Amino acid sequence: MPKYSRAEPGGGLDSVFRALADPTRRAIVERLARGPASVSDLAAPFDAALPTIVQHLKALEAGQVVSSAKIGRVRTYQLVPGAFGAAIEWLGRQRPPAERQLDRLAALLEKSAKTTQGEEQ
Amino acid sequence: MPKYSRAEPGGGLDSVFRALADPTRRAIVERLARGPASVSDLAAPFDAALPTIVQHLKALEAGQVVSSAKIGRVRTYQLVPGAFGAAIEWLGRQRPPAERQLDRLAALLEKSAKTTQGEEQ
Repeated sequence: MPKYSRAEPGGGLDSVFRALADPTRRAIVERLARGPASVSDLAAPFDAALPTIVQHLKALEAGQVVSSAKIGRVRTYQLVPGAFGAAIEWLGRQRPPAERQLDRLAALLEKSAKTTQGEEQ
Repeated sequence: MPKYSRAEPGGGLDSVFRALADPTRRAIVERLARGPASVSDLAAPFDAALPTIVQHLKALEAGQVVSSAKIGRVRTYQLVPGAFGAAIEWLGRQRPPAERQLDRLAALLEKSAKTTQGEEQ
């Protein structure tokens, strides 16, 4: 690929997007956004067997979306702070030219409105 | 999954995230963010064979990230406006409690700074 640059050399976006391309894994992320949880807490709402949930957690950990720590006999998972920063930033940059033009128009109108307000005062 | 709700019933996030979990497909999206392009334009920067690029375009079309139209003998691809809206919105909502607390603190400080400025004037 000589002309195109990859967003992240380490393939970080690959593993983040792959980790999120599954409804069970996204549901786990939604749960962890409310706070850390143990494997059994995370598995409780699902019909899936515990090893399936553990596999999903491994995929999320591989994507550096979640991290875990074992305290005594209980492994607790939590969201990695800023895990989605690069993904959000990349997605925000990929917008069709028409949308970007509308953004510029909106910014121009806002600036114009502020100038008019200033003149009135 | 009785306790967790899916972000989108149609599985739209599944196919968007799956479509983006590949560096070649993300490079195609980056190119289309600059404007529509034909299959051969899109394939030009890659070492991959044309059928491979066509497969990637099909995956992006399945994820409703790109759309195509055939004019005469040339098929032209373009980004679907707002294709990433749901993905950005979902990602923005999934933040660890600590990050959300920092956001609230930042908002509070900004509000406090504005009040102080108002008193000085």
